[in-house]
Amino acid sequence: MYYVTKRLEISASHSLKLNYSSKCKTLHGHNWIITVHCKSEKLDQHGMVTDFTHIKRAIFESLDHKNLDDILPFNSTAENLAKWLCDQIFNCYRVEVQESEGNMAIYESS
Amino acid sequence: MYYVTKRLEISASHSLKLNYSSKCKTLHGHNWIITVHCKSEKLDQHGMVTDFTHIKRAIFESLDHKNLDDILPFNSTAENLAKWLCDQIFNCYRVEVQESEGNMAIYESS
Amino acid sequence: MYYVTKRLEISASHSLKLNYSSKCKTLHGHNWIITVHCKSEKLDQHGMVTDFTHIKRAIFESLDHKNLDDILPFNSTAENLAKWLCDQIFNCYRVEVQESEGNMAIYESS
Repeated sequence: MYYVTKRLEISASHSLKLNYSSKCKTLHGHNWIITVHCKSEKLDQHGMVTDFTHIKRAIFESLDHKNLDDILPFNSTAENLAKWLCDQIFNCYRVEVQESEGNMAIYESS
Repeated sequence: MYYVTKRLEISASHSLKLNYSSKCKTLHGHNWIITVHCKSEKLDQHGMVTDFTHIKRAIFESLDHKNLDDILPFNSTAENLAKWLCDQIFNCYRVEVQESEGNMAIYESS
Repeated sequence: MYYVTKRLEISASHSLKLNYSSKCKTLHGHNWIITVHCKSEKLDQHGMVTDFTHIKRAIFESLDHKNLDDILPFNSTAENLAKWLCDQIFNCYRVEVQESEGNMAIYESS
């Protein structure tokens, strides 16, 4: 099996809708470090799984320096963001979204 | 599958009960770096696996700046600590307890 | 199962053959960080899976400070390079080729 992983950083703002007290309900921002994992049993005609540049473009153009609440049609948790990205990127099966030094959410397709 | 990982650091003291000579039998302390892994096939109503803040609170309130020997009902090894934490945190399946730069214990539920 | 991993860095030049616009088509270079993973159920007569020195030699003698386009009989993507290395190293089952801070390709034999 061939794999590629692309790691990049976006800056954005968001807030969470929660029915309990949390500072995350206030509009705030992060530098999210996003790691995209793609895999394929066979390489394409160029000898690639997924072009790194195409992954970068898909994430940056939609999310960097934006307000995630305006873009995502659901509560903008790191878990939801990970799945949303995974669904959009060719050959992607796992996305890690690191929201801060200690907090990471991961979506992995079955 | 959705995953979250929460990494944090606690400072505490402890000593080990051993029937052989060891400097670990003397009361001493560490900065333990604890990494908690939770997973769930479905997200909750807020789009989360387990709220990062709830994980942090569970660990900090019980262990940080305490003497583990006063809290844990067993020999306070990193192995025992890892399992004890795993059993208490919602959706948790794996806990890594790094006691020093080179020493890590891991508990993973089957 | 016994495992060894050997991590090293080579400097080389290469260019890619692509049928779309990309700066990778120009001859350029990288410091590739290569991580080789070998495994074996039993150790050899010396108590080893694969001698670290043999892994280093296999990679350095063929690739370091060379033009990959002159050596590899295919498009010199990180994916193709990972498989080519895996096929040559005794007991190797996985090779990671990190081309830049954010970009890594991996080949893992089934």
